[in-house]
Amino acid sequence: MPKIKVGIADTTFARVDMGAMAIDELLQLTSKIEVVRYTVPGMKDLPVACKILFEQHDCAICMAIGMPGPADKDKICAHEASQGIINCQLQTGRHIIECFVHEDEAETPKELIEVCENRSRKHARNIFYLLFDKKWFIKNAGKGLRQGFPDAGPIKA
Amino acid sequence: MPKIKVGIADTTFARVDMGAMAIDELLQLTSKIEVVRYTVPGMKDLPVACKILFEQHDCAICMAIGMPGPADKDKICAHEASQGIINCQLQTGRHIIECFVHEDEAETPKELIEVCENRSRKHARNIFYLLFDKKWFIKNAGKGLRQGFPDAGPIKA
Amino acid sequence: MPKIKVGIADTTFARVDMGAMAIDELLQLTSKIEVVRYTVPGMKDLPVACKILFEQHDCAICMAIGMPGPADKDKICAHEASQGIINCQLQTGRHIIECFVHEDEAETPKELIEVCENRSRKHARNIFYLLFDKKWFIKNAGKGLRQGFPDAGPIKA
Amino acid sequence: MPKIKVGIADTTFARVDMGAMAIDELLQLTSKIEVVRYTVPGMKDLPVACKILFEQHDCAICMAIGMPGPADKDKICAHEASQGIINCQLQTGRHIIECFVHEDEAETPKELIEVCENRSRKHARNIFYLLFDKKWFIKNAGKGLRQGFPDAGPIKA
Amino acid sequence: MPKIKVGIADTTFARVDMGAMAIDELLQLTSKIEVVRYTVPGMKDLPVACKILFEQHDCAICMAIGMPGPADKDKICAHEASQGIINCQLQTGRHIIECFVHEDEAETPKELIEVCENRSRKHARNIFYLLFDKKWFIKNAGKGLRQGFPDAGPIKA
Repeated sequence: MPKIKVGIADTTFARVDMGAMAIDELLQLTSKIEVVRYTVPGMKDLPVACKILFEQHDCAICMAIGMPGPADKDKICAHEASQGIINCQLQTGRHIIECFVHEDEAETPKELIEVCENRSRKHARNIFYLLFDKKWFIKNAGKGLRQGFPDAGPIKA
Repeated sequence: MPKIKVGIADTTFARVDMGAMAIDELLQLTSKIEVVRYTVPGMKDLPVACKILFEQHDCAICMAIGMPGPADKDKICAHEASQGIINCQLQTGRHIIECFVHEDEAETPKELIEVCENRSRKHARNIFYLLFDKKWFIKNAGKGLRQGFPDAGPIKA
Repeated sequence: MPKIKVGIADTTFARVDMGAMAIDELLQLTSKIEVVRYTVPGMKDLPVACKILFEQHDCAICMAIGMPGPADKDKICAHEASQGIINCQLQTGRHIIECFVHEDEAETPKELIEVCENRSRKHARNIFYLLFDKKWFIKNAGKGLRQGFPDAGPIKA
Repeated sequence: MPKIKVGIADTTFARVDMGAMAIDELLQLTSKIEVVRYTVPGMKDLPVACKILFEQHDCAICMAIGMPGPADKDKICAHEASQGIINCQLQTGRHIIECFVHEDEAETPKELIEVCENRSRKHARNIFYLLFDKKWFIKNAGKGLRQGFPDAGPIKA
Repeated sequence: MPKIKVGIADTTFARVDMGAMAIDELLQLTSKIEVVRYTVPGMKDLPVACKILFEQHDCAICMAIGMPGPADKDKICAHEASQGIINCQLQTGRHIIECFVHEDEAETPKELIEVCENRSRKHARNIFYLLFDKKWFIKNAGKGLRQGFPDAGPIKA
């Protein structure tokens, strides 16, 4: 049976190699997929990278990995990239799991790397569930799941 | 007569299971529909989830349920999701009722759950009216109806 | 001669029935049109409502009527709706006259209703001119016309 | 030889008749063009006006003229209009020169009219160059040209 | 073998001739490409300029070069241009490397020109790698590469 292609789009701008983490997690989870990695300069190049992964590499799903800096300009960049990623999904009818870690999400380098590791691996698992076990999400609907940090959990009255 | 398919797209990020509330309300209202639930990781995955519900599951209408956190980053996320949800509607010519509850809309967990319950059930009724009784909306035009809170009512000079 | 269809999209969220005002004005102006009213829950439902009025009801032009609340969240909602309304126009090549009144545009309920009345009726006339007398706009180009308030008038050196 | 059609889209909201200024400049520059003027109520009506000028009037290029007021609401309006104008260009593959003058760009009415006059005439010349002498732009690349105000000029180390 | 066409879209608004810098770098890197330069008045004209470079000039890739001023209005302009550039990429499935330098990125004219020189040349190299050596990016994924400034480098725990 031919393997299902999963696109991993990431950047040279990012300061942590989350692409490698996500790929490692995916390949540990299953041998039924083949990863196509497409690295681009920055976040704003991710939407078209995913479009190319869908159209030219026939990926069934993508992950878009980016790491916005702490400045206002970087936040706007991330916003523009996110809009493009959503538009790309609407045009292709396929999922792109956005895995962005903002540089100011942690206080120390060590913590930041942990956020990156946790988020990229958990989102790799989300891709696995989207491909092979969509019911897993229904079971966890409204459960306050988080990627990068511990789950927030459901709100209790 | 085949049932009309209603798509319910929701998230594992949300901390209240509004999808279950909306489905419960819909199935109490009518036996003429069939619910297709599609749960995804986060709000930004909702636009393509609805696209898939329309195109692959042949839903006539969708509800997109999300629960943005209190941080600025979450507000931007919700904004991006909303833009995608509107674009998805324009591409398909079908309604998606957006049912978002912001975590900071209430002061206590109990109140927040009440907002969720009220909004998801009232929006389920809006879906019912859009499918079976569109004139109901004309009768209530300009009446200051609210979901999640009591109606604001019409302004009186 | 068949009547020209004019779509009036409005909401149950609004607290003033501007749809009725606009329709009343239109029907006073001409008997050559037929109004198709489509009321939806909120502002974000207006773009697809107009799309449906164009595609399924064959309207030649639409008015999209909304009434954003005073909170920041409402302003963002109105922004998203406006973007969708512009996109809908670009997709269909037909005009949608946006008639939004923000709740904080007036200081008393009485004044707010006057703004609503004035804006919806003046925009109804704009629809009339777009359908039957486009040269009227050229004659008034740069004249500082306003809807909802008195005209600002042209700037004089 | 048939004349090239140039669309001039402007508004009755504007308080200076920049459309007339731009048309006057264009007709002084060349007799090879024919102007099609399309005036609409406000800025948000400009994107579809240009779409109509391209599709129904076969214009080769458009100018979109608007005059946002000084309030925050007006700035958002201008932003929405600009996004639509860019989308319209992408859909048609044709240029729309945006000529917006914000009411708060000058301190006195006299200065504001001068800004309008200068910007609309200089952008009319830009349209002329885009139609007949594209190399003019390459010669002036990076030269800090401005419309509405004196050129900023190139930065010198 | 026919040369690969690279589109360089830039503006007369910019105050540094980054187009010339990028072209110089590209032609030093390889003789396998042919540059098509398309200069337009301002940043908001860049998206359609790239569309034209793709569709009418058959470019395989573009660089969009702009130089936003320091005012808020300029930041919004840049944001609108960026959204259009991303949409253009999604429509064509081809890369546009955005090379924007904000006038307030440096403290002296000399430093600003250095930022422009560095960013435009590094992005020219990115275009080279996208055309001829995509694996170069994978090797540098997560390495914190920067254009315009020294690389930030990877984060170390």
